[in-house]
Amino acid sequence: MLKIGDKEFISRLFLGTGKFGSSEKMEEAILASGSELVTVALKRVDLETETDDLLAHLKHPRINLLPNTSGARNAKEAVFAAQLARDAMETNWLKLEIHPDPKYLLPDPIETLKATEELAKLGFIVLPYIHADPVLCKRLEDVGTAAVMPLGAPIGTNKGLRTVDFLEIIIEQSRVPVIVDAGIGAPSHAAYAMELGADAVLVNTAIAVAKNPAQMALAFKMAVESGRMAYEAGLGMVSSSANASSPLTGFLNM
Amino acid sequence: MLKIGDKEFISRLFLGTGKFGSSEKMEEAILASGSELVTVALKRVDLETETDDLLAHLKHPRINLLPNTSGARNAKEAVFAAQLARDAMETNWLKLEIHPDPKYLLPDPIETLKATEELAKLGFIVLPYIHADPVLCKRLEDVGTAAVMPLGAPIGTNKGLRTVDFLEIIIEQSRVPVIVDAGIGAPSHAAYAMELGADAVLVNTAIAVAKNPAQMALAFKMAVESGRMAYEAGLGMVSSSANASSPLTGFLNM
Amino acid sequence: MLKIGDKEFISRLFLGTGKFGSSEKMEEAILASGSELVTVALKRVDLETETDDLLAHLKHPRINLLPNTSGARNAKEAVFAAQLARDAMETNWLKLEIHPDPKYLLPDPIETLKATEELAKLGFIVLPYIHADPVLCKRLEDVGTAAVMPLGAPIGTNKGLRTVDFLEIIIEQSRVPVIVDAGIGAPSHAAYAMELGADAVLVNTAIAVAKNPAQMALAFKMAVESGRMAYEAGLGMVSSSANASSPLTGFLNM
Amino acid sequence: MLKIGDKEFISRLFLGTGKFGSSEKMEEAILASGSELVTVALKRVDLETETDDLLAHLKHPRINLLPNTSGARNAKEAVFAAQLARDAMETNWLKLEIHPDPKYLLPDPIETLKATEELAKLGFIVLPYIHADPVLCKRLEDVGTAAVMPLGAPIGTNKGLRTVDFLEIIIEQSRVPVIVDAGIGAPSHAAYAMELGADAVLVNTAIAVAKNPAQMALAFKMAVESGRMAYEAGLGMVSSSANASSPLTGFLNM
Repeated sequence: MLKIGDKEFISRLFLGTGKFGSSEKMEEAILASGSELVTVALKRVDLETETDDLLAHLKHPRINLLPNTSGARNAKEAVFAAQLARDAMETNWLKLEIHPDPKYLLPDPIETLKATEELAKLGFIVLPYIHADPVLCKRLEDVGTAAVMPLGAPIGTNKGLRTVDFLEIIIEQSRVPVIVDAGIGAPSHAAYAMELGADAVLVNTAIAVAKNPAQMALAFKMAVESGRMAYEAGLGMVSSSANASSPLTGFLNM
Repeated sequence: MLKIGDKEFISRLFLGTGKFGSSEKMEEAILASGSELVTVALKRVDLETETDDLLAHLKHPRINLLPNTSGARNAKEAVFAAQLARDAMETNWLKLEIHPDPKYLLPDPIETLKATEELAKLGFIVLPYIHADPVLCKRLEDVGTAAVMPLGAPIGTNKGLRTVDFLEIIIEQSRVPVIVDAGIGAPSHAAYAMELGADAVLVNTAIAVAKNPAQMALAFKMAVESGRMAYEAGLGMVSSSANASSPLTGFLNM
Repeated sequence: MLKIGDKEFISRLFLGTGKFGSSEKMEEAILASGSELVTVALKRVDLETETDDLLAHLKHPRINLLPNTSGARNAKEAVFAAQLARDAMETNWLKLEIHPDPKYLLPDPIETLKATEELAKLGFIVLPYIHADPVLCKRLEDVGTAAVMPLGAPIGTNKGLRTVDFLEIIIEQSRVPVIVDAGIGAPSHAAYAMELGADAVLVNTAIAVAKNPAQMALAFKMAVESGRMAYEAGLGMVSSSANASSPLTGFLNM
Repeated sequence: MLKIGDKEFISRLFLGTGKFGSSEKMEEAILASGSELVTVALKRVDLETETDDLLAHLKHPRINLLPNTSGARNAKEAVFAAQLARDAMETNWLKLEIHPDPKYLLPDPIETLKATEELAKLGFIVLPYIHADPVLCKRLEDVGTAAVMPLGAPIGTNKGLRTVDFLEIIIEQSRVPVIVDAGIGAPSHAAYAMELGADAVLVNTAIAVAKNPAQMALAFKMAVESGRMAYEAGLGMVSSSANASSPLTGFLNM
């Protein structure tokens, strides 16, 4: 079973809550996905109203909230947001997102390392969103990260695992769970990440914008389970020469 | 539901029976896969013994046999083999394989078209294994093929859908079911084929040579169902610019 | 030097003449490319006027014309067109194009084989445009083709060598020159084809629609020469583990 | 013309000096490449002998030396090595390489930023080797880097531009020259980098280990020039639908 910090997860599919057509559609999709960890942008939560609509739709016994710092441009902003989130959502879990770039929303390695170190000291369970940079992953481990969340492709592009050469190295070297985040646009991408040995994937756009989000969420659930199962069952190697499944010796020559 | 000829299939995963460590492992994997159509090389069947070991392991109410002509090098050999198969296995279904090339086992378009035409006239339900050639697919339709089975990559390579640009065209144009055959080496490949709109996939090597074939078969079952489900739920487009899942407007600026 | 039929070519870059903004731009690009073989659609030639504008711009001592049968939908039409072309352009060289499909313009393997056989018997030097189908290539050899012209990607897409897995097999097995045709959208694609060991490439769209066709033609000329040179100089293998160019032993440890 | 710091370069091909069979082969390849900037690992230079063999082979009027800090594991070691290099090789140009990881030799983003800032203040012209991380590139600009050298693939793998999605963003956003470093294994890869708009490429392994390094160096020279020329001549878009180069309207219907 996947263990992050002190929690164990049956599901290896984490979900984002943005871009859904309605809170009802979101809730339906999350339940269909079987996800036990969903990320919520602090900004979207109405911190002063007790009956926040978004959060109300996320209250389920098996669902853990993972506040994120989307919108933070540096470590200082992220640490501040994290503390607000801890109070508002009553959890010390945090998806750390620091992206100074408003166009591609790519993460800042320097500020992310700094904030991770600080937040880990403050008792947070930190899951940082990062570039698929194997050296950065090791440094995050050194300062107490609970997991690493390397991107598969620029966020929102649905391009899949364009960073596979680096994800393989990260998975090989990591002592903390590796969660592939961003770019996963289809169940096949999620299955591929799991086949490589990733510990989990986080999906948002591909489910939220589907014509039928709940059905797509279920498709992702199955793909993640399938990929994990294949990883454990031992996939064959890619070869360049053919290797017939059926015997060739000419039975018609006789 | 998938319909080929006059049969309907719940499962969109077809299996090959070659390369398994034992007939028991094969049977176990086939049952785990949920497959309703499994292909058997005529050569492997002991035509004179009533109690053929291989066939005995394939006798299940939901499993249909699909004899194949593996080893045939031209239309004449294939037609002869098909007739032997029809008598021996008591089915007019046929996976037509004509590969004169002993190294890469790639199919011959000319002989395949010729044999398909002849076999269709003889009352066979023909499923020809072919290169991912959209024009050949249309010609096979014209002579009465029941389905087309374009390859994803050279057989036995596990390379996945290397012919995707052509599979998309085939799927767009085909009036008969499109079954992706050869090259599918991981559940993610099978899911991808289904996401593109393929009607089914045929898998053999990747399951047969897995450390745990039954578990791998189950992984493929789930991947195929996942990919189909995603196809029906409406996948998003791949884009080149980022598109944040979470709102960006700087909540910390206030 | 490249030899096709009885002619030798210094340049391994063949050009198409469609889509140029003007005949002058076309001529300028062809001269810049150094190409010695350019293909012309029979339809575009005014068969009755002696002073055809297009052909006038192609009259250069080093440039050989290669009429093509673009528009032919079957062997019969192609053979008829070939004979017209032989008379009109006074050459028995022929680029055989048979594409019944008006949308993707993909070649018909059956009709192409039939027409190649017939045209070879009629004394034509036939260069057929085909799918990257290794078995078809061998069959074309058997009926007297002078070369094979497998496609890299659907024509006009600029997608590059999407058929690389099959081109490698074709190059390995072919006894006639292999000319990669269709899909080559950038000099890097042309260089790649040559690095794989292709004998030549045919380019049209990428040069004709460039902002500056003559400069693009020169870029392709250099890329083709570069790729061929690299092929001959012996390229290294792709590896999955790092292999430092610089020594690593820590000079700072001392 | 390419300008880095206060120097202008006609050639956009930079070379490494490791792995050559002999200093003579290296010199021959460098001259064939036309390169004006070659990188030398400080460790390989005999700092105490005036007649160092390696350096003797690099003394040419047009060739500038670019010492590198290969072997440095953090900013402190790199800054120390840089100062040694400046004294020994009489240049303030520096290729900054900090790779704590001995297996894949991937660069450390944190230490690289720190060392770049410090070295820029000390008057160095710094060219840092980095992951293809667009945000890191912007931060390096902010601290005075002279260029950025993102990797195409793990060093020594010959895999080509596996980071293309990120290189495109880096090139779009950068205000300093972008030099693609590491992973370039064939001229087609170098041409591709230039077609994308990179300012230069650095190649080492692919040339040094070729059967004929001088010929391979010339092939790379031509590929780089070709790619740059194509970039300037305006490449077409990749499309998914076919677009015939030749007219289709059936001339045989008449």
